[in-house]
Amino acid sequence: MSSNSSSLYPSTYHPQPNALAGELSALLGPTKVLSGVGERLNYRYDAILIGQTPLAVVLPETTEDVVTAVRLARRAGIPVVGRGAASGLSGGAVPLQESVVISFTRMTQLNIFPLQQQAVAQPGVITLAVSEAAKPYGLVYPPDPASLRTSTIGGNLGENAGGPMCFKYGVSGDYVHALEVVDADGDIHQLERGAYDLAGLLIGSEGTLGLITQATLRLVTPPKYTRTLMIHFAEVGQAAEAVSQAIAAGAVPSKLEFMDKICIGAVEDYLALGLPREAEALLLVDTDGDDLETVEAELALVEQACKAYGAVVRRAANDLEAAALWQARRSISPALGRIRPKRMNEDIVVPRSRLPEVVREIRALSEATGFNVAQFGHIGDGNLHPNILFDPRHESEAAVHDLAHQIALVALRCGGVLSGEHGIGAMKRDFMLDALDRSNLEALWQIKRALDPALSLNPGKILPEW
Amino acid sequence: MSSNSSSLYPSTYHPQPNALAGELSALLGPTKVLSGVGERLNYRYDAILIGQTPLAVVLPETTEDVVTAVRLARRAGIPVVGRGAASGLSGGAVPLQESVVISFTRMTQLNIFPLQQQAVAQPGVITLAVSEAAKPYGLVYPPDPASLRTSTIGGNLGENAGGPMCFKYGVSGDYVHALEVVDADGDIHQLERGAYDLAGLLIGSEGTLGLITQATLRLVTPPKYTRTLMIHFAEVGQAAEAVSQAIAAGAVPSKLEFMDKICIGAVEDYLALGLPREAEALLLVDTDGDDLETVEAELALVEQACKAYGAVVRRAANDLEAAALWQARRSISPALGRIRPKRMNEDIVVPRSRLPEVVREIRALSEATGFNVAQFGHIGDGNLHPNILFDPRHESEAAVHDLAHQIALVALRCGGVLSGEHGIGAMKRDFMLDALDRSNLEALWQIKRALDPALSLNPGKILPEW
Repeated sequence: MSSNSSSLYPSTYHPQPNALAGELSALLGPTKVLSGVGERLNYRYDAILIGQTPLAVVLPETTEDVVTAVRLARRAGIPVVGRGAASGLSGGAVPLQESVVISFTRMTQLNIFPLQQQAVAQPGVITLAVSEAAKPYGLVYPPDPASLRTSTIGGNLGENAGGPMCFKYGVSGDYVHALEVVDADGDIHQLERGAYDLAGLLIGSEGTLGLITQATLRLVTPPKYTRTLMIHFAEVGQAAEAVSQAIAAGAVPSKLEFMDKICIGAVEDYLALGLPREAEALLLVDTDGDDLETVEAELALVEQACKAYGAVVRRAANDLEAAALWQARRSISPALGRIRPKRMNEDIVVPRSRLPEVVREIRALSEATGFNVAQFGHIGDGNLHPNILFDPRHESEAAVHDLAHQIALVALRCGGVLSGEHGIGAMKRDFMLDALDRSNLEALWQIKRALDPALSLNPGKILPEW
Repeated sequence: MSSNSSSLYPSTYHPQPNALAGELSALLGPTKVLSGVGERLNYRYDAILIGQTPLAVVLPETTEDVVTAVRLARRAGIPVVGRGAASGLSGGAVPLQESVVISFTRMTQLNIFPLQQQAVAQPGVITLAVSEAAKPYGLVYPPDPASLRTSTIGGNLGENAGGPMCFKYGVSGDYVHALEVVDADGDIHQLERGAYDLAGLLIGSEGTLGLITQATLRLVTPPKYTRTLMIHFAEVGQAAEAVSQAIAAGAVPSKLEFMDKICIGAVEDYLALGLPREAEALLLVDTDGDDLETVEAELALVEQACKAYGAVVRRAANDLEAAALWQARRSISPALGRIRPKRMNEDIVVPRSRLPEVVREIRALSEATGFNVAQFGHIGDGNLHPNILFDPRHESEAAVHDLAHQIALVALRCGGVLSGEHGIGAMKRDFMLDALDRSNLEALWQIKRALDPALSLNPGKILPEW
């Protein structure tokens, strides 16, 4: 791996067509291969990181196309990088060296099996499309990353994406029955979840152990009732403590989202929803279930706990009002984009009891470094997204990376982990050195070398060298 | 691996004390090591298979004790076999060659963290004890293998055990937040469920990749209401079809158990509960949830679907009556023990739509071979336990193994898998050759060699040679 792997703007790219692109085109047909530099340039970045321009981009339509591309790249000694919608926030889909990018956006077959409560999806299926296709049968696919209107099943499984629902309903990997995978040799595997759970190992491995070419997903019946609260607090600690008390009292909210003062201000500047700019913390809470009485009782537990900490509570009177309240949360990303053109999105998870301390420490780091850091996330399971907002024209990316590292260290010091749902990717790869001891890292490398001896699958991701 | 691995009664055992037992005793203290042959003999079998007498048995009280035992065995070049309550049904805990058995029955620390809805358990904790300790906090640990009163968390995770609840609530591995694991070198790892899900890989790996020394388990709030039906059918196909129709109509029973005519007769001979001996299939069905109306509606869907197929339905009027109905299911194992002294318990999973055909084919095999084969299992997810009943004094164990193999082939031919919840162990190891292609098997072996290069952890289990 080159030292480029931690640079946001590598200096080299390859404007000339190349032999590998020609060979791929000859085997797969020219419509399935992008070889012009203008096209290839679009496949060097995701939502957070810019990497190397790939040597060729393959747009497979079948698993056999994937096999062909992997085998040809392998023979040429060129790495392979899988890619979904590239909406990821850790650089997972970004090539860090000359590579063949396999972009799954044309593999969009989707079949619903209502009797089995299963969906069989190719990796390019948009996440939301699964629930939309399942809806006529009274079924739903619960994982709900914020990107669900653009991100793909393959990308979600590669990063084991979560979302607001994951506190109650679990992450993407919890809904996988079976995978079809193309390995580093180009061999196809049908993996059930069994002894030696290879499917589980592939989920969240960011295409570093194999490429997912089909997933059999579990569908569930959605809850009958959902109720929504918006709550604001004068102090972040109060929000965290109120949430803990409500959960201890028996509430299991299906969603429990937190926004800090910077996010509230940014969204208000953007949409003028009438949010309380003076509040230090805003919570959005859903409870759901089949029993309206229980759903309302859980909501009341949250309301009581929050009021005991002096919070102001607004209750959505109907679905329309609930959707309006949730708009505040969904608008954070575009709203923050108006403050600074770029951001580095952290994804730490800490014990809920440590959240007030973590939010305060991150705010102190923000003040000490002069960077705007907006904090929001899934407070129910302690998944916080501190976003470092910056302008690469005026601000040092090395300083941004340092600050992200310091935030990661705060999380680890408070008993937390590096990533809740965005993956490790390239962005947090080196932080793994802080998170895992040498013997754990060696075990991960042993797995990597066992399944990808030539280290040809998405090099530079997840696993740091040491 | 010796050819003993598939023999039920290996002819050799080692009556003399040995140097390794002495060394272990010197390092750990004599109360933690069993070296006499009379004691060691008790650690050569599980609930289905008799293996080799271990060279020494270690009864660790701490993770450090496990580290000491693993390192000493490693230096001596002797394999290590982990063991819980040894109630397993695939030979997973049975030493197949001269080994050190590490029996976790003294590692029984258990702490409940109600705020986090978690339990932290050492591997020797009895499964039921988790729910019992969680009950005062209004929490429960859902996995419910039939053995839950004797089996241990370590054994359950080693085999990724299921149980009747698993159709609605998932298997043991679905409730694991984190594991502490001692690897083949004796190094301790703290594994969260993250990228490269090593914890997930360890679950169900039967101690072949590492030894679980602590588990952080997820607890949930139990449903408020449960309702129970007992249903009998004149024909197995009707039962399977009725179940499929009820599920398609929207019922998600929390338990859905099937017993065939042989099981019904055996239980009736044993307990005289008044079961219908003439029925070809008996179902026990629970629905549960927080909304009584939904619970009753789901039960009604099952009832209607079954009656449409001519079934006779009995509804439990209260919890006491429900417990009485479930006694029939819980008594299958002891009841079958009265027919023949030994049995080989299969654990196939097939698509529910193929169940009638599978049950018929297995019955035909039973008639062709002359063996009694009793069939029962978790019909909701197609997990069937055909039990070959035999008397080793008069009947050939090779013939039993052949029949088990033929049953496995029926499952694979009908799109099923070898094991739902009992693991592969020694019993179904060779059947893996039928279930997986060469490239899948090679991937599993690569994982094994990466994490246990000396092949010293529970040799002879899961992975066949070829």
